[in-house]
Amino acid sequence: MSHLLSAKFNQHLHSLLASLVNKQSAQPRLIVALSGGVDSVVLLHLLKDFQGQYGQYQVIAHNVNHGLSENAQQWGSFCKDLCHQLAIPFISSHVVIQKKSRTSLEALARDARYQCFQEKMQDNDIILTGHHEDDQLETLLLALKRGSGSTGLQGIRTQQDFFTGSLLRPLLIFSRVQLVNYANEHGLQWIEDESNQNTDFDRNFIRHNVSPLLNKRWPAIAKSASRTAQLCQEQQSLLDEIAIEDLNACLVESFAQKTLLVSAAARFSDARRNNLIRHWLKSNGLQYPSHKQLKILWQEVALAAADKQPQLRLGTYLIRRYQGRLYIVSEQPLALPEKPLNWSGEDILWIDKNRLGVDFSAVSKELAKQYNVSCYLRKHLDASLTCLPEGRDKPRTIKKLLHEYQVPPWLRDHVVFVFVDGQLIEALDVWKCEDNKSKLLADAISPSLYSDD
Amino acid sequence: MSHLLSAKFNQHLHSLLASLVNKQSAQPRLIVALSGGVDSVVLLHLLKDFQGQYGQYQVIAHNVNHGLSENAQQWGSFCKDLCHQLAIPFISSHVVIQKKSRTSLEALARDARYQCFQEKMQDNDIILTGHHEDDQLETLLLALKRGSGSTGLQGIRTQQDFFTGSLLRPLLIFSRVQLVNYANEHGLQWIEDESNQNTDFDRNFIRHNVSPLLNKRWPAIAKSASRTAQLCQEQQSLLDEIAIEDLNACLVESFAQKTLLVSAAARFSDARRNNLIRHWLKSNGLQYPSHKQLKILWQEVALAAADKQPQLRLGTYLIRRYQGRLYIVSEQPLALPEKPLNWSGEDILWIDKNRLGVDFSAVSKELAKQYNVSCYLRKHLDASLTCLPEGRDKPRTIKKLLHEYQVPPWLRDHVVFVFVDGQLIEALDVWKCEDNKSKLLADAISPSLYSDD
Repeated sequence: MSHLLSAKFNQHLHSLLASLVNKQSAQPRLIVALSGGVDSVVLLHLLKDFQGQYGQYQVIAHNVNHGLSENAQQWGSFCKDLCHQLAIPFISSHVVIQKKSRTSLEALARDARYQCFQEKMQDNDIILTGHHEDDQLETLLLALKRGSGSTGLQGIRTQQDFFTGSLLRPLLIFSRVQLVNYANEHGLQWIEDESNQNTDFDRNFIRHNVSPLLNKRWPAIAKSASRTAQLCQEQQSLLDEIAIEDLNACLVESFAQKTLLVSAAARFSDARRNNLIRHWLKSNGLQYPSHKQLKILWQEVALAAADKQPQLRLGTYLIRRYQGRLYIVSEQPLALPEKPLNWSGEDILWIDKNRLGVDFSAVSKELAKQYNVSCYLRKHLDASLTCLPEGRDKPRTIKKLLHEYQVPPWLRDHVVFVFVDGQLIEALDVWKCEDNKSKLLADAISPSLYSDD
Repeated sequence: MSHLLSAKFNQHLHSLLASLVNKQSAQPRLIVALSGGVDSVVLLHLLKDFQGQYGQYQVIAHNVNHGLSENAQQWGSFCKDLCHQLAIPFISSHVVIQKKSRTSLEALARDARYQCFQEKMQDNDIILTGHHEDDQLETLLLALKRGSGSTGLQGIRTQQDFFTGSLLRPLLIFSRVQLVNYANEHGLQWIEDESNQNTDFDRNFIRHNVSPLLNKRWPAIAKSASRTAQLCQEQQSLLDEIAIEDLNACLVESFAQKTLLVSAAARFSDARRNNLIRHWLKSNGLQYPSHKQLKILWQEVALAAADKQPQLRLGTYLIRRYQGRLYIVSEQPLALPEKPLNWSGEDILWIDKNRLGVDFSAVSKELAKQYNVSCYLRKHLDASLTCLPEGRDKPRTIKKLLHEYQVPPWLRDHVVFVFVDGQLIEALDVWKCEDNKSKLLADAISPSLYSDD
């Protein structure tokens, strides 16, 4: 019944593309991730047929040689020949992967493969992979093994954003058996990856030892598991939607970073607060925290007694609280310059390249010639230096002011003091100075702080 | 290391009870669901120890004989003797279960057992069951097999409301092996339920054929799966919280039932709307709909063209749309009386017992003697009867008024017309009549509509 599968595929892919293409301007290219295995060979074949009916799409195949198998070269040739027969443009990439443990090898190979796709990508390209229903069941069982919540239980997603384009898995609605039948009915040739037999890989262990047992007892289990994944995808998208809404009520800008206001987050139920904190951490490049870490983060950091300076390490970050706000702090210390830096007209004057800088891009470069503009850090200042900030009645030492302006202790060394012709005009993002000359200068020379946090 | 298990149990149960007891007034009784198997025997033993340390709780055991095993009588005696030895009060119940298919038998037995617990329950009682980590893994695998979303992936819940009290599973933090070790170290005796060997039951199939394979490969998988369940419980509680909030913006009272305003629900994202509709149906006694049913419900019922009368069958209910609102309609027709009904002072004058009635409980019973109060349905009225509703300028026929007042067609036969001394004073929950006599009477005799919908 391969013509039925083909018709169902065309309809499914058409509707997936319709929802994507609506959002995009140009007609995207369809790039098949082609390994030479039965899944991607069938996908390529189906796409050739799809293209015949919906001719506006350009179909291209991309094979990545991971160099992990002795036969990888042969697979590459096989894929190239296949594309030649089908008159489909062919791209190949080579990567070198450092072998580590057997299980992490899977993840390394996937990351390397996706890196290759990205490198050859044009805007709006859609990468298509051959993942199917049985892969989904394996993925969900692996999520249970890891103890994932609905994030992991989303399994393999039908569609996701991928760099400047998207990733689509149009075969997730079919089982492996359906794909093999299709391949046989069309007399397709493919390659068996011998590493698929290696049950040192967790996924292969499930594929060869667990799935057959489950499929025999419940022939529809892979289809059911796919439904579970779909439901969890929808639920996770709702949880993300809520988190973004709730974060709006909790995030406050503080010294060029978004910090979390504890009193605002405290108004939510535990489940809702955990959801928003999870999302906050993830969107700042951290891993999702465990349930236990979340509990510590809230109970022992956010809600610690007012005189405490609590912190929690999450990966290479620290979560710290100061004056009722939570900060995400990179554990990697900034490399601070020995001496003050002079601005000579550059767009960004880097304090530490790509991490902390002073953004002069909106300031006229002419001013660099008229004035001597320099950026000092606390360590470059005389300890007795005083300053009268705008709106204050008397000058105080910098040390006292940093405390009064509630700059968190670990950020005080990073505050940038802008001097013009030897006179302090502002502490960037903290205060501007009161006297008229400073005010005038600060209006003209008003850089902003660049921070990667 | 059984004293460690015991200490961990005490601490865990103590904190579970603390969170429950805060909400309740009286100190609850702890009722162990005792089957005689190792799980519940260990639970009872642990509770005896707990009670020694936290003496304020009364511990009771409750054994249910399902009559499904030839040995059920023996188990009952075993449990009774055990409780006698431990000086723990013992309750036993017998139920008769109609054998159906092997798999549904599990569900029937559970329902019957929970029914027995309910019958012997006092307010605030806490029922404790011996479910453990390995049960949780089985339950999650069964949820994947069914294709459940996070509702089903919550697995066995640590705590849930149960009639007038709660259900607690304090052993979910332990594995079966830990419990058996505890039992052996304390020289406990228990009974092996021979039906646990029957792999016709899906759960037993997993227990004997799948779990051992998974446990051997990943010894921590049951613990991980428990974490998954915990996360899904938290996520589901958040989804419910959001649904309740969102429903507030969408539900409108309409003819004694809460109906869903389509225009209000349409403002939400798909995922968020699905979540609130799922919750609305569930809280009205329907099963959770499938993803496909939800899609039909929204696309083909809620959003059908204005001139259509769309409907969707869900179990024994229909979901119908009328004038931009969704109604949940029982498919079971009301048994409407042949003749009008006279009110003779009763609290509720039943149109159809327990389903539709007129609630006179707030009306003085004396009035039944002074006036002839009767309740008519449309079928009892003369087709030419006209009425001038309050605030209208001219009388119209009942038929036209029911249409004008936007009573859904399927509800028009159920509208109750209250007559006093032969004069129509109101159509309950739809309109009151204009003339002064009616108004005076309607103020005095103002029953309300009772509907089970």
